[in-house]
Amino acid sequence: MTEKIKIGIVGYGNVARGVERAIAQNPDLELCAVVTRRDPSSVKVCTEGVQVVSAADAASLTGKIDVMILCGGSATDLPDMGPQYAALFNTIDSFDTHACIPSYFEAVNQAATANGHTSIISVGWDPGTFSLNRLYAESILPDGAHYTFWGRGVSQGHSDAIRRIPGVKNAIQYTIPVEAAVEAAKSGSQPVLTTREKHTRECFVAAKEDADLAAIERTIKEMPNYFSDYDTTVHFVSEDELKANHSKMPHGGFVIRSGKTGDGNHHVIQYSLDLDSNPEFTASVLVCYARAAWRLNQKGETGAKTVFDIPPALLSSKSGEQLRKELL
Amino acid sequence: MTEKIKIGIVGYGNVARGVERAIAQNPDLELCAVVTRRDPSSVKVCTEGVQVVSAADAASLTGKIDVMILCGGSATDLPDMGPQYAALFNTIDSFDTHACIPSYFEAVNQAATANGHTSIISVGWDPGTFSLNRLYAESILPDGAHYTFWGRGVSQGHSDAIRRIPGVKNAIQYTIPVEAAVEAAKSGSQPVLTTREKHTRECFVAAKEDADLAAIERTIKEMPNYFSDYDTTVHFVSEDELKANHSKMPHGGFVIRSGKTGDGNHHVIQYSLDLDSNPEFTASVLVCYARAAWRLNQKGETGAKTVFDIPPALLSSKSGEQLRKELL
Repeated sequence: MTEKIKIGIVGYGNVARGVERAIAQNPDLELCAVVTRRDPSSVKVCTEGVQVVSAADAASLTGKIDVMILCGGSATDLPDMGPQYAALFNTIDSFDTHACIPSYFEAVNQAATANGHTSIISVGWDPGTFSLNRLYAESILPDGAHYTFWGRGVSQGHSDAIRRIPGVKNAIQYTIPVEAAVEAAKSGSQPVLTTREKHTRECFVAAKEDADLAAIERTIKEMPNYFSDYDTTVHFVSEDELKANHSKMPHGGFVIRSGKTGDGNHHVIQYSLDLDSNPEFTASVLVCYARAAWRLNQKGETGAKTVFDIPPALLSSKSGEQLRKELL
Repeated sequence: MTEKIKIGIVGYGNVARGVERAIAQNPDLELCAVVTRRDPSSVKVCTEGVQVVSAADAASLTGKIDVMILCGGSATDLPDMGPQYAALFNTIDSFDTHACIPSYFEAVNQAATANGHTSIISVGWDPGTFSLNRLYAESILPDGAHYTFWGRGVSQGHSDAIRRIPGVKNAIQYTIPVEAAVEAAKSGSQPVLTTREKHTRECFVAAKEDADLAAIERTIKEMPNYFSDYDTTVHFVSEDELKANHSKMPHGGFVIRSGKTGDGNHHVIQYSLDLDSNPEFTASVLVCYARAAWRLNQKGETGAKTVFDIPPALLSSKSGEQLRKELL
């Protein structure tokens, strides 16, 4: 039996706990350490025998962890954490601030290359498997257009934005693709679709007693970037109803490419996800890319990578022979 | 401007002509030669300036062609043609006899490796992009099951089998996924679906005058391997109707993976194709893998490969920087 790949997790929130569950589904991987910014004694890890280490002592794990999965946020955690950990370990992260990916890639690449590590950035489903499907489909059908739709699913960012409005106790926001836009995307007419045409937003809000509901609704609908470009519906519900019916984190969506070949033959490639738990699915993607990062590093392929650079076979626990026989 | 990648095609049937059309959509590729087993003077290639060479003289093209795309059939052409051309050129083929892939891989690998060439076998959509999606989805959701459905589309093999029945002038066979089976596959119950439950077969047959229609219908429905395991419908139509309504080669289908994470959260990953022209789409996949084969060869990565071994970025004409900015 070959040795298991030793995984560490930085953070212990929703995605990190999803990583822990995903590792348990992969017999060739084992969770060895959780790195936390909190007091390590306050973090109770479900898996037995896992070391909990303070972020300040992360360097003490070098040589003991094969791949570190960074479960920090893109806004404030990863810009520093990414390069910092790439200097110490092979890493995986889910950096998703699209506009900053080029500079983040450079920073991680420098740290990883200088220290002989392999770091795969922006792993998950978007960026991640959605990106892969945009790339494959565009390469196959260069004469075409692609469309990405998200939902029906909970957007944490939009839910948080509503929660910050005075008078709001709690809120959940669903992003919903517009059926007519999906049909137009597949039609072959290659339409240009506006933000408003592609998605609607539906909000379930538990307000404080005596709150001005009309004012809350207006504030939501007029909020720039988050809601003003969308047709938004607001439902006021009790906190109990919010808990009972809206406490899961479903998400999903689809990438469509519509393209032409020859004398106008039309083709549609579609990749769809329908997910009960956004953080657990994201975690499952991170975990199979950890396997790939370790294998690349063993072959001496160091530096920053994205999902675009990873040969698919490296994600699987199966041998090339098995894959050709069972899945090709 | 960097030099274009010089492509050759072996054969000049439906897929080969699709390859020619696809190359025209990719400015970094150029079609330089068509290799034929027929009299070269009888083959009129649409693209100007393309050399037509007899298969007997294929070796005269070594050094002039960067990648040769083999458009032969899997049953009789490729088993010899694959290793033979892999000894002379970098190659792409769409070998699709699943049971023989391991031995074919070995034969091509030996020829390619010994001669410093890179050969990507079994490229297309199944095997091909469907295989990729089986691999990605299984790696992400190891606790799950996958289902491949084909159609609605024309099966050439089944159409040919009907045409060989005495009394049949012409015929077209459609493979059709059963809606209830598709729903069951997505349900999360991970059912085991029989051949009969997954697909039905619909046949449009133009019979000769005075042919025994009942006998033809019986022969079709009882044909082992091809029809006896399926619910099959036979429609007798005129040859004119067959030409008018059934002369295109649409196809498609989907790969579904249904899997679980954590405490029974259920996820569905689906990849779907809806194709007006099966040969043109297959050709478009072959062409972008030709780009990858050339790039791998330039990096010294020789031998036989499958789609599982190819980093997705190598398929695109865009740089890594562009891909990270535009598609990640």
